[in-house]
Amino acid sequence: METNDLRERIAEAVRAVRATVPLAGSVTNGVTMDFVANAQLAAGGSAAMVYLPDEGEDLVAMGGAFYVNMGTLMPVYEQTIPAVTARAAQLGKPWVLDPVGIGIGSLRAQLLREVRDEPPAIIRGNASEAIALAGLWGLLGDEAELARVRGVDATDEVGAAADAAMVLAQHTGGAVAVSGAEDLITDGRSVAFVGGGSPLMGKVTGFGCSLGGVMAVYAACADPFTAAVAAAAHYGLAGMRAAERAVGPASFKAAFIDALYAAAPEDIASVPLRLQEVMA
Amino acid sequence: METNDLRERIAEAVRAVRATVPLAGSVTNGVTMDFVANAQLAAGGSAAMVYLPDEGEDLVAMGGAFYVNMGTLMPVYEQTIPAVTARAAQLGKPWVLDPVGIGIGSLRAQLLREVRDEPPAIIRGNASEAIALAGLWGLLGDEAELARVRGVDATDEVGAAADAAMVLAQHTGGAVAVSGAEDLITDGRSVAFVGGGSPLMGKVTGFGCSLGGVMAVYAACADPFTAAVAAAAHYGLAGMRAAERAVGPASFKAAFIDALYAAAPEDIASVPLRLQEVMA
Amino acid sequence: METNDLRERIAEAVRAVRATVPLAGSVTNGVTMDFVANAQLAAGGSAAMVYLPDEGEDLVAMGGAFYVNMGTLMPVYEQTIPAVTARAAQLGKPWVLDPVGIGIGSLRAQLLREVRDEPPAIIRGNASEAIALAGLWGLLGDEAELARVRGVDATDEVGAAADAAMVLAQHTGGAVAVSGAEDLITDGRSVAFVGGGSPLMGKVTGFGCSLGGVMAVYAACADPFTAAVAAAAHYGLAGMRAAERAVGPASFKAAFIDALYAAAPEDIASVPLRLQEVMA
Repeated sequence: METNDLRERIAEAVRAVRATVPLAGSVTNGVTMDFVANAQLAAGGSAAMVYLPDEGEDLVAMGGAFYVNMGTLMPVYEQTIPAVTARAAQLGKPWVLDPVGIGIGSLRAQLLREVRDEPPAIIRGNASEAIALAGLWGLLGDEAELARVRGVDATDEVGAAADAAMVLAQHTGGAVAVSGAEDLITDGRSVAFVGGGSPLMGKVTGFGCSLGGVMAVYAACADPFTAAVAAAAHYGLAGMRAAERAVGPASFKAAFIDALYAAAPEDIASVPLRLQEVMA
Repeated sequence: METNDLRERIAEAVRAVRATVPLAGSVTNGVTMDFVANAQLAAGGSAAMVYLPDEGEDLVAMGGAFYVNMGTLMPVYEQTIPAVTARAAQLGKPWVLDPVGIGIGSLRAQLLREVRDEPPAIIRGNASEAIALAGLWGLLGDEAELARVRGVDATDEVGAAADAAMVLAQHTGGAVAVSGAEDLITDGRSVAFVGGGSPLMGKVTGFGCSLGGVMAVYAACADPFTAAVAAAAHYGLAGMRAAERAVGPASFKAAFIDALYAAAPEDIASVPLRLQEVMA
Repeated sequence: METNDLRERIAEAVRAVRATVPLAGSVTNGVTMDFVANAQLAAGGSAAMVYLPDEGEDLVAMGGAFYVNMGTLMPVYEQTIPAVTARAAQLGKPWVLDPVGIGIGSLRAQLLREVRDEPPAIIRGNASEAIALAGLWGLLGDEAELARVRGVDATDEVGAAADAAMVLAQHTGGAVAVSGAEDLITDGRSVAFVGGGSPLMGKVTGFGCSLGGVMAVYAACADPFTAAVAAAAHYGLAGMRAAERAVGPASFKAAFIDALYAAAPEDIASVPLRLQEVMA
């Protein structure tokens, strides 16, 4: 794949979302539910959040994709998350996993282990979360396997998670997105680096969560790798534009959502982007 | 009733809310709790949200009205919502129902069935929710009954729910508000159409939920029909004013809350409004 | 202690927070979680919210301090809050209590009674909450004791809670902050009155909750009294600055978070502040 092909696929995904307004339901973090929903709407999709198992199953069936974020787990999520992921597997609907908080408490690890073999279409997290999930799933144990997928320059924190992202993507058959100053996104063969954004994203809660929710919107209209790259590009562009207008974190967040809403497909497809083929 | 009488009643309701700062507690949607509370405060009321049954009962007793929104149900709501509505009936306190998500999962339908015979003073929803609730309560079965209440022009989505809104209002003895490009509000005899607003309201989560919360604030100071119309007029005016200042959905939401806060009673009472008497 | 010493300690606390970005996890109010997290980030700290007992214990261990807000209790909080406060006591980590909603429902009173003897480093509430908590803990029963701590002018609502704040602080050995037009903060010997702010703070949900969360951030870097005063000063300055830019409650909230982020240590330390020594 050439970079220009990927740019064209990004623009097509943006147009498809705007044309179809796909529903991506969520079981998600209570801290950032409002931001996730508003980002999904501004990006061109439709949003709905639930807590209960049968409601999650219904939303999977109604939507084009689903979003599962592991923040602020409730006791009932011991039933809800397995119910949602089983229904998604049954119906062949793509879902996006954000393993936020991995390592905190016991239920999160239990739920993450349970989805190992009916895995998400897209995993989104920061570098340490990607490494921890690959470890939890037993994908980092074999040094020979790791060596096989190595080949991405690991010069920063995101790069340090490149191996984990590769083995996760090869395990799931989907895409893995590692958020950082530059986002790394891989399908286990190609690696895209998506730029843009702003350091102010780290000073507002929910940029990671809402990016996962927007990836689910895109996953309703595009393959997992294209969906993850398109959402990251959409965020990269909106972040750059918002940084020009922002005085601080709150004005940045508002300008960012406005910019998500206004961004043209061609502009989203023009964010800083480079592509590396890892496995020939 | 003449339109000018209704406008005067709107202005009086706004003045009464500003003068008394009524508390309207809520059991409401986790996605939009912050928006509901801030809209209630900006409109001139006071807000408090709870999850547990006895806390809901206490808030009903402390407040002038109550708001029940069916989004993001928790397991404990199987106890909380019946406890709240029973206490409201016992104390004669008006409450507002938003049947959002009707049709998703089984608990929501169960809870909605349970309140049929101790019904809310105001029901607020979109067109399909009003129709679904009238169906769930068995109010659409009798064609003769439907014919009796017909008479509102059904030229758009909201109009298509006019019959359902009429039978719901006649069943509850309160008011029913159907949100749309123009809001339809009826007490089962009169139908008010309230204009204003902005299409950007559909691009931000929680405009429906927070309108329900503000209706509860008004219901503490006015009869259900006047309360529902006054809240819709307040939203209509603030939406028009916010649209003049907004760049996108997030700047629109902030400008809207600012406009809710600043709006004068006379300006709220001057929104586009027409009144139809259906049953002589 | 002289006022100038306190100002210097405020500036040092601000510099320490900015230098170390301390994590203060929370079990907090669902209505205002987003505001709490964003205020903690803007003030210079790091945020994480959880619902489950073992997750709360893990966050206590990971962070420099913890925040417990009694709003929107869930059933599982019957386990979570005792687990969190026991772990904080065990590890010697400071925690901040916001007894919001005291008097509503039975679980809140039960949980507040349980923490009486492993008390928080900082209690933050409004005047009536401070008085109610002192009553619940049996600290107001002895008129002689009350007379002993009297001596603060009680000319307004906050002042009326001065006695309660004093006995609470003497009981806990920490600090108590009573929010109002002017904030009163005491360690049971000194009383600081911190000014600034804006009446618009009362028209937005979560200013009290988020101030408690920011006090927890400061408590990771300073003694309880200095932490509470520094957070109140930070809020006082940001409130004054935001009021200059605000059109209404929503633009005020955004300008406030931007101002929290931008405020220099010296400016925070220069807010209106007076100090009274009560017990020689």
